[in-house]
Amino acid sequence: MIRFNSDYTEMCHPAIFDALKAASREQNPGYTDDAHCEAAAAMIKKAIRNDKADVYFFVGGTQTNATIITAALRPHQGVISCETGHIACHESGAIEHSGHKVITVKGSDGKLSAADIEAVWHKHFDDSVHEHIVQPKLVYISQTTEIGSQYTKEELLAISAACAKCGFYLYIDGARLGYALGAAGNDLDLPTLASCCDVFYIGGTKCGAMFGEAVVITNPKLKEDFRYIMKQVAGRLAKGWLIGIQFEALFKDNLYEKITKRADDLAMAIRAALLSKGFKPASSSTSNQQFFYLPLKVYQELAKDYALSVDGPLDEEATLVRFCTSWATEESAVAGLVKRITEL
Amino acid sequence: MIRFNSDYTEMCHPAIFDALKAASREQNPGYTDDAHCEAAAAMIKKAIRNDKADVYFFVGGTQTNATIITAALRPHQGVISCETGHIACHESGAIEHSGHKVITVKGSDGKLSAADIEAVWHKHFDDSVHEHIVQPKLVYISQTTEIGSQYTKEELLAISAACAKCGFYLYIDGARLGYALGAAGNDLDLPTLASCCDVFYIGGTKCGAMFGEAVVITNPKLKEDFRYIMKQVAGRLAKGWLIGIQFEALFKDNLYEKITKRADDLAMAIRAALLSKGFKPASSSTSNQQFFYLPLKVYQELAKDYALSVDGPLDEEATLVRFCTSWATEESAVAGLVKRITEL
Amino acid sequence: MIRFNSDYTEMCHPAIFDALKAASREQNPGYTDDAHCEAAAAMIKKAIRNDKADVYFFVGGTQTNATIITAALRPHQGVISCETGHIACHESGAIEHSGHKVITVKGSDGKLSAADIEAVWHKHFDDSVHEHIVQPKLVYISQTTEIGSQYTKEELLAISAACAKCGFYLYIDGARLGYALGAAGNDLDLPTLASCCDVFYIGGTKCGAMFGEAVVITNPKLKEDFRYIMKQVAGRLAKGWLIGIQFEALFKDNLYEKITKRADDLAMAIRAALLSKGFKPASSSTSNQQFFYLPLKVYQELAKDYALSVDGPLDEEATLVRFCTSWATEESAVAGLVKRITEL
Amino acid sequence: MIRFNSDYTEMCHPAIFDALKAASREQNPGYTDDAHCEAAAAMIKKAIRNDKADVYFFVGGTQTNATIITAALRPHQGVISCETGHIACHESGAIEHSGHKVITVKGSDGKLSAADIEAVWHKHFDDSVHEHIVQPKLVYISQTTEIGSQYTKEELLAISAACAKCGFYLYIDGARLGYALGAAGNDLDLPTLASCCDVFYIGGTKCGAMFGEAVVITNPKLKEDFRYIMKQVAGRLAKGWLIGIQFEALFKDNLYEKITKRADDLAMAIRAALLSKGFKPASSSTSNQQFFYLPLKVYQELAKDYALSVDGPLDEEATLVRFCTSWATEESAVAGLVKRITEL
Repeated sequence: MIRFNSDYTEMCHPAIFDALKAASREQNPGYTDDAHCEAAAAMIKKAIRNDKADVYFFVGGTQTNATIITAALRPHQGVISCETGHIACHESGAIEHSGHKVITVKGSDGKLSAADIEAVWHKHFDDSVHEHIVQPKLVYISQTTEIGSQYTKEELLAISAACAKCGFYLYIDGARLGYALGAAGNDLDLPTLASCCDVFYIGGTKCGAMFGEAVVITNPKLKEDFRYIMKQVAGRLAKGWLIGIQFEALFKDNLYEKITKRADDLAMAIRAALLSKGFKPASSSTSNQQFFYLPLKVYQELAKDYALSVDGPLDEEATLVRFCTSWATEESAVAGLVKRITEL
Repeated sequence: MIRFNSDYTEMCHPAIFDALKAASREQNPGYTDDAHCEAAAAMIKKAIRNDKADVYFFVGGTQTNATIITAALRPHQGVISCETGHIACHESGAIEHSGHKVITVKGSDGKLSAADIEAVWHKHFDDSVHEHIVQPKLVYISQTTEIGSQYTKEELLAISAACAKCGFYLYIDGARLGYALGAAGNDLDLPTLASCCDVFYIGGTKCGAMFGEAVVITNPKLKEDFRYIMKQVAGRLAKGWLIGIQFEALFKDNLYEKITKRADDLAMAIRAALLSKGFKPASSSTSNQQFFYLPLKVYQELAKDYALSVDGPLDEEATLVRFCTSWATEESAVAGLVKRITEL
Repeated sequence: MIRFNSDYTEMCHPAIFDALKAASREQNPGYTDDAHCEAAAAMIKKAIRNDKADVYFFVGGTQTNATIITAALRPHQGVISCETGHIACHESGAIEHSGHKVITVKGSDGKLSAADIEAVWHKHFDDSVHEHIVQPKLVYISQTTEIGSQYTKEELLAISAACAKCGFYLYIDGARLGYALGAAGNDLDLPTLASCCDVFYIGGTKCGAMFGEAVVITNPKLKEDFRYIMKQVAGRLAKGWLIGIQFEALFKDNLYEKITKRADDLAMAIRAALLSKGFKPASSSTSNQQFFYLPLKVYQELAKDYALSVDGPLDEEATLVRFCTSWATEESAVAGLVKRITEL
Repeated sequence: MIRFNSDYTEMCHPAIFDALKAASREQNPGYTDDAHCEAAAAMIKKAIRNDKADVYFFVGGTQTNATIITAALRPHQGVISCETGHIACHESGAIEHSGHKVITVKGSDGKLSAADIEAVWHKHFDDSVHEHIVQPKLVYISQTTEIGSQYTKEELLAISAACAKCGFYLYIDGARLGYALGAAGNDLDLPTLASCCDVFYIGGTKCGAMFGEAVVITNPKLKEDFRYIMKQVAGRLAKGWLIGIQFEALFKDNLYEKITKRADDLAMAIRAALLSKGFKPASSSTSNQQFFYLPLKVYQELAKDYALSVDGPLDEEATLVRFCTSWATEESAVAGLVKRITEL
């Protein structure tokens, strides 16, 4: 059984492991107040070309999302998300637990548009009793999206302008940002992405690290007392330097983009094989996640040898199946899967 | 300018005022622990034919909804509601503020069906990672609904059975329960309604009282420590007997149903006039709220002399307008409005 | 049985009842957006000599406290209160329910001092890991205090200065503000009190109204979107004009201070009688609440004819008993109680 | 500079690192649903001699505390803690953020007693208006305590009996449980501790692991839907097997107790040196944390070469200083510190 069901089924890239090993006898101060975190933050600020940004290190994505959203909103405010957004359907109500409504929008190809955002503004503020409705204040998008698609530079600039017009903050969940950077056709580099939003995070857990996410805050309004709120929602790792070390390694010699690009290329080989057999993709993804509608029998046949993940109900005609590669995926494994698909 | 914009634009029915006046020099203990509340609770238990129910008195509806939902749910659980439900769109996120997701369903004619409820169950529990999604636990419906329609006995029995099958609690928001009881074609009496759900409330504010709602809990699991949670969310009025007095008056000689039936009949006259002119109703309502799609110019013409409320955006062809009667509406006012509509 | 157990055992002052009666057939818009609330707000702004203040009307005190504190604080911030403060021990955790810690200070005579406030600042900010501790941000005091004592002008000016120095907001709970204004020796008038704090409320429920509290916000930072948060915590009464009418009556011809002064004078007669018998007062109160330590037998003897309230455990030597007068207390009732005490 | 300031300044015991390395190329399913977590849970259940317990793996302690307390309490309930408890003063209000009050008790030597617990019960339930006060429901203690002391078997049995009598749950925070097991004079073994409480956790982060805590729930009432709540507060690590691997290593050949006992012995050498110089200890600790009151100058002298942590304000006569050893502390470093103290 070979796993293509997710991109967090392996521990970490060897370079990460080596970096941890090298530091295994060090003494460090706690809670990310150490030299490794400082160095990693400097590397990230250089990569986004913004030395005034704040960088904070978290263990995982759900925690990161909840902390940023909690820190940014007042009690009566909500966060706008695509219906398929991670915060809308994969976090067991973590956002609501912190008191805020997730205002969902249908979107298209897993993405929100500038028009979607302005429509939420109008729906809310045109209402004569708008104080009886949750006030939208922050827009949540992810790059790549939950179904593997990605925003172009043009789309993101339009979204950024819409947010500015509406007085909304823009937050980009980059759990799979590495896979976006490496994807075929990508025209959004890190400095542009950073300049378009108020806060975003660079995902480590799914992109080569053992664990860890690096939050980058560019809007000064969102920086105030952020460390308190991190602590309150248990977002500060006692041995915080563990995350600093990993981001030092990821941002050395461009490792972050190299290893994710390789995974994207492997995923595109799987996509090509599925398309060639006439199966219908669920998104335009050119990144490491490929979602396809497969007949149930086809899924069951592949599932004999490969762990895949199913999204939604099992359906005779169109079961939604995710194929996922990662920095750890072996080329021979993909070759085997492609062969198997081709021979279906 | 005559107000048809809502059913809470007048103070209270004269019988309520007289009852308050009669008690104006009494001394009473606080927080609803008084003889008036006790007597009113007894009258309500008699009316629903269930002497084991618990009755609690609140000031208003948003508070009542938030308290019941907070008391019933654990942190990871959510409440199922129609998209048009009051808790979904008119309470500024009060439910999310207490930590819970409102799981919305499209519904039809402002109502949920048994099939809708079972579909939510399947969508949640069929998912292999259902622990990553908010667990549905309580079904919220209102009688009459937010757009004036109402559940039949057959529909409510089916919903009740679906909830039992899924392990969901059923809660009925009765802010306008009086208008449901009096509506043409209604076949759902209080004892049947009470026996079909775990908890409901009998609305006073919109049905003749100055203010006040009477919560009835029939499921013993929902009774435990309910008074603590009332207090915590500020739901216990210091001079609680004020509400007890009002419900004594409402349940004396069937006043509650008499005054609301009259309002329903007046609303049906408005409905008939609007239908006769070919305007399209937004629901099947036979109760005191009539929602119609009107050309913007028609609305603006009527708005010269009548306060009406608009739901959603102003639209050239189909602006959604609410006409509302109450226990206080004068027959001459309705006759005038009907004449005006007819002459459009 | 005559009640001296609290100041909310009677409905309302006759002038309030008459004002409600006079408006009983009016039509008014909802949610405090009406002419009565507007007029009452204007009267209050005139009384405090600050026409830039915002005035909001609530039903009761617990709700008022929770709304103001929720609106003022970010998630990691807490509110400083005396151990005996209402929010610390009489609201079933309403403040914690909204996510905030009540940071308690022992205080003296039911009051906080400027030094207490600065000590909290030092304890927090001197700590090298202060981000691991809740950040104090708002100071809560009440006038009169929970045990009837009251702040002098000098004390309040010192507190106000301490708050400014520490960057804390100051909020004054005025549930019994009327009784403070009327108390012997009071040197704090409304304009001074209003100018010393960021937000306070003028209590109606315990001072002549049927119900209702008027919140006054003078700090512009605390005004933003306050109406949303009121709605979210169910703080906006549907028939909001009911409260406006009552405050119009309370602020006409200085009724508010007249009726509370009378109650204070009656309470002082009870205090004098208790002191003359050698019983020990629990505070320096010159207002309508008198707390005394009585031998259990003395309490039990008085309790045969008078409803009194006991604070804390029954104690053979020193049971803490509250004697409470109100705008409704009859002089003959006090005369009877004084005679009874004298004859003990 | 040698660090004695905390027990989480080094990465992990070499056996842990080797175990992670051995698994570094494995594929595993996510969210602790893997074979390593299963094996580790079995080892823990064997060690506590209770095969019906549930075991859950978390990343860190603040998260663990918040999750357990949130899962156990209803909205109106609070948790009883010693004033010095971690949840009371080192988690930035994480418990209040989830809606619950921390009811603090002074305690003695950092510990609660059975009598303290019963006193809280009486204070609450003897009050005639106890529904106006937060209801105590769960008792939080830690072993070792925040100041290094530890409960004896006799003390814990008494606390357990008091909780049973009062209807309270008992939760033991075992962030430093390893150091308690190894401490001189300890008579509380794991099976006894497990049988005395409803839920506890075995700390990894401070006791040899890179990170990770193992929660053990023995009371069936606390097990229901616990995985949902873990996810909601971001408590489920994507690569959960990382924690499983570490606990397999810690529970193999009794490593957990061996490495912590060694640290305790080293700490006792420091204690002996400090006592011999006449300094005053702040607790009876025989474990890895030693708290002493030192003259400020003495602290400053030691601080030239050693990182120590200060609790509370700098004080000329009595600055409270923590000396902390861990599984990683070198004997030579302790010998050097002892020599330095002796020569003061």
